[in-house]
Amino acid sequence: MSASPYKQLEQEFRRLHAFRGALSLLRWDAAVMMPRGSADVRGEQLAALETEYHAHLTSPRITRLLDRAQANTLGLADWQVANLREMRRQRDHAIATPVTLISRLARATSRAEVQWLEARQEGRFELFAPHLEEVVNLVRDKASLLGQALNLAPYDALVDEFSPGITTLDIEAVFKALSRRLPSLIREVIALQDSRPIKPLTGKFPPNEQRALAVEIMKAVGFPFDRGRLDESEHPFTEGVPGDIRITTRFDSADLFSGLLGALHETGHAMYDLGLPQEWRDQPVGRDRGMALEESQSLLLEMLVCRSRAFVRYVTPLIERHFGVAGPEWDVENVYAHLTRVRRGLIRVDADELTYPLHVMLRYELEKKLLSGELSVRDLPGAWNAGMEQRLGIRPANDADGCLQDIHWAVGSFGYFPSYALGAVMAVQLFESLRNEVSDLDGQIAYGEFDGLFAWLREHVHSVGARVSVHELLKDATGKTLSAVPFVRYLENKYLEGAATTAAA
Amino acid sequence: MSASPYKQLEQEFRRLHAFRGALSLLRWDAAVMMPRGSADVRGEQLAALETEYHAHLTSPRITRLLDRAQANTLGLADWQVANLREMRRQRDHAIATPVTLISRLARATSRAEVQWLEARQEGRFELFAPHLEEVVNLVRDKASLLGQALNLAPYDALVDEFSPGITTLDIEAVFKALSRRLPSLIREVIALQDSRPIKPLTGKFPPNEQRALAVEIMKAVGFPFDRGRLDESEHPFTEGVPGDIRITTRFDSADLFSGLLGALHETGHAMYDLGLPQEWRDQPVGRDRGMALEESQSLLLEMLVCRSRAFVRYVTPLIERHFGVAGPEWDVENVYAHLTRVRRGLIRVDADELTYPLHVMLRYELEKKLLSGELSVRDLPGAWNAGMEQRLGIRPANDADGCLQDIHWAVGSFGYFPSYALGAVMAVQLFESLRNEVSDLDGQIAYGEFDGLFAWLREHVHSVGARVSVHELLKDATGKTLSAVPFVRYLENKYLEGAATTAAA
Repeated sequence: MSASPYKQLEQEFRRLHAFRGALSLLRWDAAVMMPRGSADVRGEQLAALETEYHAHLTSPRITRLLDRAQANTLGLADWQVANLREMRRQRDHAIATPVTLISRLARATSRAEVQWLEARQEGRFELFAPHLEEVVNLVRDKASLLGQALNLAPYDALVDEFSPGITTLDIEAVFKALSRRLPSLIREVIALQDSRPIKPLTGKFPPNEQRALAVEIMKAVGFPFDRGRLDESEHPFTEGVPGDIRITTRFDSADLFSGLLGALHETGHAMYDLGLPQEWRDQPVGRDRGMALEESQSLLLEMLVCRSRAFVRYVTPLIERHFGVAGPEWDVENVYAHLTRVRRGLIRVDADELTYPLHVMLRYELEKKLLSGELSVRDLPGAWNAGMEQRLGIRPANDADGCLQDIHWAVGSFGYFPSYALGAVMAVQLFESLRNEVSDLDGQIAYGEFDGLFAWLREHVHSVGARVSVHELLKDATGKTLSAVPFVRYLENKYLEGAATTAAA
Repeated sequence: MSASPYKQLEQEFRRLHAFRGALSLLRWDAAVMMPRGSADVRGEQLAALETEYHAHLTSPRITRLLDRAQANTLGLADWQVANLREMRRQRDHAIATPVTLISRLARATSRAEVQWLEARQEGRFELFAPHLEEVVNLVRDKASLLGQALNLAPYDALVDEFSPGITTLDIEAVFKALSRRLPSLIREVIALQDSRPIKPLTGKFPPNEQRALAVEIMKAVGFPFDRGRLDESEHPFTEGVPGDIRITTRFDSADLFSGLLGALHETGHAMYDLGLPQEWRDQPVGRDRGMALEESQSLLLEMLVCRSRAFVRYVTPLIERHFGVAGPEWDVENVYAHLTRVRRGLIRVDADELTYPLHVMLRYELEKKLLSGELSVRDLPGAWNAGMEQRLGIRPANDADGCLQDIHWAVGSFGYFPSYALGAVMAVQLFESLRNEVSDLDGQIAYGEFDGLFAWLREHVHSVGARVSVHELLKDATGKTLSAVPFVRYLENKYLEGAATTAAA
């Protein structure tokens, strides 16, 4: 007797999962290892595999099996029913985009990524512009087709691919709340910090030693180096699959913390991926619940855990040992002041918690305009610089520090940026509950113990996989719905601590 | 109007070529970059892609198109007809092995490779034995099915996969000639070399600086670092595709030449791959003409070019500059004496030109016995050690220096080893003609100029691709058929140079 339609689907999606892993490795290699001149070859390989993946996911066989399995779910467990729903979701997304478009996008983004790297290194936007234009045109076509098929606005359809269940309504509600309070809060915090002396953290921080420190902390956090790697790339990222996680960062010998916190940010992603339900690892229901939740996990580790006094107590002796530094500037309060320093800066990945959402809002506004055609690629640098001036009061001296700083648009990731800000908001909501339920969290962290932290996250976030929607997951874990209020309150408490008058929420 | 059957086939094989490139990268990564614990995940990925590759190559569509295209080749150019022949060859090989066997082999070799690495590092054969046994059993099944389908003896069918057109008859004719002369020649050469004083090459050779030297020479030779990489791995190898060639070596800080010559050996492979006919690069006829010819290209560079006085003249000043060494031991004759030193050693990849074929003959004998069942995996270490004793008069102290030294059997490459010895024989035949036709070759090499060398090889070997058989290629290039006579004569002339009485051929 042949296997049930559901069991046959599991087998098909196991194979698709292996293809996804291979594709992820090809992308990792392209960003970390591949010789510069090989982008054309890699583009053909990515296109061939993506075409095959797409053809298989959208094959009549999968559709037929899905129809049969969903017609009768009696006898299936909850996880299996959820798995069917996620299979259908993936298939519906895939079938909305024709195979020729997928393959043109793969080729275009492969070329664009290499040109972006070169344009960024040379600070010459014009090298990248024609490639970005090609990508924008193809993504616009995709958004339109996807929106029609899923009955969503084109931009929402793109967001839904990255963060299922998140809509423009969610995004704009959060952004509105943040817009109301962040600009004034940033002014207040900077004024307060300016009134407090801070001692510079001097010393030599060779990248090799920074790497050794990052590896030591990642090991304490629980990153399994027998099933993962830390490398360097232009832009920190996480690739791979739960059994082979590849994270990257970039080390700056003049700055002790940017590379380390980049690595820990990506470690947050890796820990989420590694905590996904083991027995569903190669199935759609065993995947992460979208990029906003992914980002909540990386920001929770980077911002809420690693920029805390407890973490500073743990990390300072390690820094002293790795770099042979000592002195009053390395006391807990001064290091903490550095890690919570708020400054209007040009680079998103180096931004603090307060200014970070403003970086995201700028990108959100610009990518919507690029897709609608309201803004042409040619005018992007000007619009970017004007937007930075308006939101943060600073202007990039060159496009490398401006619209060329992020890889996302080069690789076709439009609709992705909002997840960063939504992730920050979710991280605070989750952390509030976690803190109530894990006893002596700060004490554990100060001793370099992260088991309590990750036990809670694994139970309430990681092990859920894609069994429920992100909104349900948040409600189950915290009892509350998505809201920017806890985030704003957290920022006020943390960054206006000890100020003469506490600002109202 | 739809494309002709031939044109449709070109399109299909272009896609297969992209898959091959992706598979090659997954293998490269597994050997060079992948975390140890991720072998299971990688095994699933390789199996999924290989299964897909196999399914596509053996699909009714390809068979139908081949039948139609080969039924009427009027109007096709010679290259296109040859391309059809190679397409058919690939399909016939693939269809003889059922998909379940392919996929079991992929999983088994993926596991075996990791266990081989660990067993070798710890010198514990028993860690590897059960995995090798699984691989041997699967390869035996494959050889039997392949032999039936291609009307070849099982072992010949395996050889034909690696070196199309080469048979046991070719192999045994060459091995017989070598067996007749090599043992006595090795004795004579060692006695002669023992009578001549050699000054040790002292100095510190840090791996990083060895790497820099290797890169400098590879650039002079013509290796394009914008389309290739040099990395380190347990066993030197070449992976990738002509647009993205990945070679590896391993540096030993106590030995200046083993890592360098390993890199140059692989550079020989890379130069062949890079010289394949550009316009046929993604088609079967544009591929190399099998592993024996591949090996002729790596050995021609490593043994005939780089172990010559002319090359020593070029490389010695570079060595002095990179390592700050100086003194009489670095004069041309002494360095040349080191590079042509004949010693009975345990490690094949470190072996000289005279003892190398004996290493190969041992493996040939053992792998035939493993496949026939005459030798069990359990008894392999004993048989290996006895064979080394008999052929070379030395015995490995541990299996890491014995039957665990090569990766080939772990990855299922049975029938591959003979190509190393046949390649050595072909290299000499090709080099004899090349030397007659390129004027002042030694002068060019002494100046670090390799253009004349590679112009000849490109014209007579590389650019031929798989248009004709290896036997025809050799005949066209040299006017002669495969023979061990020039090889033996070359060894006698080179290694008995200046001896009191010249031995008879």
